[in-house]
Formats: sequence, C-alpha cells, structure tokens
Amino acid sequence: MSVLVVGSVALDSVETPFGKAEEVLGGSATMFASSACHFGPVQLVGVVGSDYPMAKLEPLRARGVDLAGLEQAEGESFRWRARYRHDLNSAETLETRLGVFSHFRPQIPEAFRNAPYVFLGNIDPRLQRDVLRQVARPKLVACDTMNFWIESRRADLLDLLGHVDLITLNDAEARQLTEEANLVKAARWIMARGPKHVVIKKGEHGAFLFSGESIFFAPAYPLESIFDPTGAGDSFAGGFIGWLAATDDLSEANMRRAVVYGSAMGSFAVEAFSNERTIALTLPEIDRRVAEFRQLVAFETVLDAVPTNGGGAVGART
Amino acid sequence: MSVLVVGSVALDSVETPFGKAEEVLGGSATMFASSACHFGPVQLVGVVGSDYPMAKLEPLRARGVDLAGLEQAEGESFRWRARYRHDLNSAETLETRLGVFSHFRPQIPEAFRNAPYVFLGNIDPRLQRDVLRQVARPKLVACDTMNFWIESRRADLLDLLGHVDLITLNDAEARQLTEEANLVKAARWIMARGPKHVVIKKGEHGAFLFSGESIFFAPAYPLESIFDPTGAGDSFAGGFIGWLAATDDLSEANMRRAVVYGSAMGSFAVEAFSNERTIALTLPEIDRRVAEFRQLVAFETVLDAVPTNGGGAVGART
Repeated sequence: MSVLVVGSVALDSVETPFGKAEEVLGGSATMFASSACHFGPVQLVGVVGSDYPMAKLEPLRARGVDLAGLEQAEGESFRWRARYRHDLNSAETLETRLGVFSHFRPQIPEAFRNAPYVFLGNIDPRLQRDVLRQVARPKLVACDTMNFWIESRRADLLDLLGHVDLITLNDAEARQLTEEANLVKAARWIMARGPKHVVIKKGEHGAFLFSGESIFFAPAYPLESIFDPTGAGDSFAGGFIGWLAATDDLSEANMRRAVVYGSAMGSFAVEAFSNERTIALTLPEIDRRVAEFRQLVAFETVLDAVPTNGGGAVGART
Repeated sequence: MSVLVVGSVALDSVETPFGKAEEVLGGSATMFASSACHFGPVQLVGVVGSDYPMAKLEPLRARGVDLAGLEQAEGESFRWRARYRHDLNSAETLETRLGVFSHFRPQIPEAFRNAPYVFLGNIDPRLQRDVLRQVARPKLVACDTMNFWIESRRADLLDLLGHVDLITLNDAEARQLTEEANLVKAARWIMARGPKHVVIKKGEHGAFLFSGESIFFAPAYPLESIFDPTGAGDSFAGGFIGWLAATDDLSEANMRRAVVYGSAMGSFAVEAFSNERTIALTLPEIDRRVAEFRQLVAFETVLDAVPTNGGGAVGART
C-alpha cells in the first residue's frame, strides 16, 4: 500500500561536535520519505524554490518516492541552519528562511488522492486539515506537530485532532499541548479529542505508543555515537507508517512492531547527517537492527518458565 | 540465599506537590531492605541515634529483616529534609544532619559474614571497601554511589571498582565518573575497571544493564501519578539483588529478570512516601506488575512469525 506524505523539503546546514554539513537535504517530508521508501511506495507533496538542487532528490526517486506532488515555485527554498551542543539534546536554531515554504498550499495530485496511508508532516494545522479535504477517506491518517503550532494555532490543532487516527509528538510537546506533566495522562487527554493512537517520542529515551488502555514502549537503540539528531523523529515516523502501509495491518500487535521499525529507522538516522544513512539502507540491515531491539528488551519471567504454579516470585522462594 | 545490606538508616522529611511527610523512615539500607525482604532474608548493617523511633523498623523485622547489625549510638539520627518541584525530577535538599552517621564504621556481625549476596549502599567508598574486608568472598557484591563520592573520593571509588561485581548508578553519575557523555561508552569505561555488570538508572526513563557486550533495557513503569521519588533507586536495587539472591542464579537471562523485578519495586516505591508502599506489598502484587512490564515491551517481529524465509521487512514487501 502506498503512503502519502505532505511536509517540508528543505536545505539544512548543521553543525555538531563531530562535523559540519552545508545545504544538505532536510525537511520533514524528505526525512520521512527517505525512511518509509524501504517498505513500499511513497508519494511526496511539498514545495521547493527555483534554486533547489533537484539532483539531490534523485536517490529518493530511485527508491520509489513519487515526486509528482513536489512543486517547484519561483523564489528561494526553505533553509534551516542549526548547531548542536555536546549533549546533542536540542538544536540551537541559528537561522530559518522559509522562502517559498511560507506560501505553501498543498495541492494533492489526482493520482495521490486515494492513498490509503497519509502522514501529515509538521506544517500549519490548517494546511494539514486542508490536505484531508483533498483525499478520499484513508485507512490511517497520522500527523506530527511542534511547539510553534501548539502555541500559535492551538484551536486549529485541536480541530485537526478530530480528523486524525494517530498523532506523533515529543514529550515536551505533549506536555505543552495538554498541560499535563504526566505522559500517561497527556496521552489520555489527546485520545479523548479524537486520535485512537498517540505516539510520544522521547528522543534518546525511546517512544511510547498509547492505544486506548494499552501502552507499549520501545527504547531508543543505545548507540555508541550519535552523529546528528536532525530528522530522527521524521525517520521514526517513516519507518512506523511505512511498516503499517507495507503490511496493511492495523492490529495492536502490528502497531507495536511498527513502533520498533520506527525506532530502528530513527536510530539509523542519527548515525549520519541528513538522510545519508537512511536512504542507503538495505532491508537486511533494517531487520538486523530490529532483531537487536528485540534482544535489548528480551526477558523471560519465571511465570513463562513455570506457567502452571501461578507465580514467579512465589516460585522463587519455595 | 540471604542478602547483606550496609547503608544509611535515616529520618526523612519530604514535601512533594502532593503532600508532606515528617520524620518518616529513610536511608538507603532501609529502602533497600523494605524491597529486598519480599524475596528472601535480609541482614541490615547501619547506625541510628539514641533518638531513633525503633518501633518504625518493626515492619521490616516482621518481614524477615535481621536488624542485629543495626547499632544504636549515643547522639542524633541522620535526618534529611527535601522538597520536590512539580516535575519531580530532582530533590532540592533543604537540610542534611548526619548526626551519628558521620562516625559510622560498619561492623559486620559474625553471623552476617558469610552472606552470599552483598549490597553496599551509598556510603563513603572507603567504608564500602572496609565492609568487603570483613566478609567471606560473596557470590555477588554490588555497590551504589553518588555524585558526592565521585567528586570527593574519586581514587577510593576507583579502587572499590576493582572489588565489586556490579555497580548501580544513575546516568548523571555515570557521566560524571567516566567523563563520557555516551552511556554505552560510560558503561564500558566502568567495566574496564572491574565490575562485570553495570546498571545505569535513568529514573523515569528506565534502566540499562550492561554485561560485557550485552545490553538490556527495562523502561520505568508508566505510572499515572508519581507521589514521591525518594528511595526509588534503592528500592530498585532491593528488588534486583533480592531476586538474584532468591533464585541464586547469575545467568544473563536471570540478571535481566532481576532488572525487571527491580524496576517493578522502584515503580511501587514512588507511589507513596518512604517505604509505605514497598514494605506492604504482597508477592502476587509484585508478580502482577512484572507481568505488566512484560506487556509494556512485548512485541513480535515478522521474523518470529515466519522464521524460515529469513526476513521480516523483506517478507512484508512480497
């Protein structure tokens, strides 16, 4: 099944303690697509300026990303310049030039309107809502957001919540949106307003999937070196939604698997600048990391070993 | 098998956004013992002043904690007064009065010297080392520490590392001790200096167990309300070492289980002040929470479902 992603396509300049990258591929749609394309076809909708180095998108096209919805408009492309300090926990934005992105009005091509899986990258919630008016009812609509929209477009964001099945946001954003310090309560608050599922991303501390009363947690993969955290969240979303679309299975068991594929893709993303690592991945590499995730959290209780006597700790004492 | 714990026995006065507790049971040895006692016999070594309300320790004795090593010395007991802000992430110490604890010289009673499992609570590393001179070679020696000792007794702490099998410390302490921001590298640094196992506690973000090349991660249980974080780390250690001693099995599979029992006990500890919740637990309650932990991280990959075709993501595409 194909995935439609609508979001930014940018040029990032990033400095980390480990190196510098100038004008590399950036943006939520780009990072999402570079991750999701390993699982199946991706349709991308976005805008770039007349100065965009289109050849940089060739690897995405080669991996099955349909760029028919990528408009090239007169003007400058979206550029973002940032620096990470030694702890890599938060980017210090040095410059944001929206360029043609400030006038972005997503136009969904006819051929994309029946996409069964839709990811609304982090853009104005009014535009996210507008995309949904242009598509036939998909099987799953997921959206991302950020602190800027929570602050400046709160009413629109709350309206959008009534029209999506799933939202991904980080822990700080979840707390900001819901005014709840506790993430379990924050997730319930969000689910009460529409989404059946809430993914709360905690960066290096992993991710929660809340679905009704059920809670699933996947740790971040403990990497020995994190090179550049930019795009980890969108790469996570790409693996997560990409997996769901590829399997076309929205059961809880499969949603849990999808979170692990998402976590795997997020962990690859931070190993290099931009989409360098994710776009070049092979399926066996992805499967290998998923197997490592499994190893990371695997444990058996005595309850598993002795299923009949009714108790682990009890059994251990006798 | 019995567990010997050496550490502080204090009176805590704690204020959280949810309430206030005055002169309740506190200290690393107390919190550890209140948790470990559910798994088997515990032998406690510590000191209190002549003003200590000994009746408060009666529930521990009733649950199998041998207090023969608890010295009552002339003078004031160790008192700690602290406040937590709304995020509950770090205690603001308002007052520390060491009292008789400042002259604590652990004397291990003859009857405790063959304890096969030893936990050296967070005290001066020179005293921790001295305890090891008084006991027959145990099957497992674990120690805890804190920022204060890392700063003021670094050489002694490094010496101690050569004599313990396992150390528990939180992420900030691991970074401080090793001067490594990355926790995987920090754990390797510590293991290179003696301990075969390193447990890095990340509070609400879970805990890592490093053993040689293997890494295990257990999330913190996502509670809807955290009442008082005091003693969570020692309660974790009590569940962890308590489980190992009860099962007398140091295999990697069992160490992983032990981390989960530790996490379960830590999650109970924060639901009430002091040891109120942990000491009153029943084994079925503990087993139930362990089962919930299992549910929290449980996922099956397609690799599990289709073990013969050699690939999850590949399988999904075909």
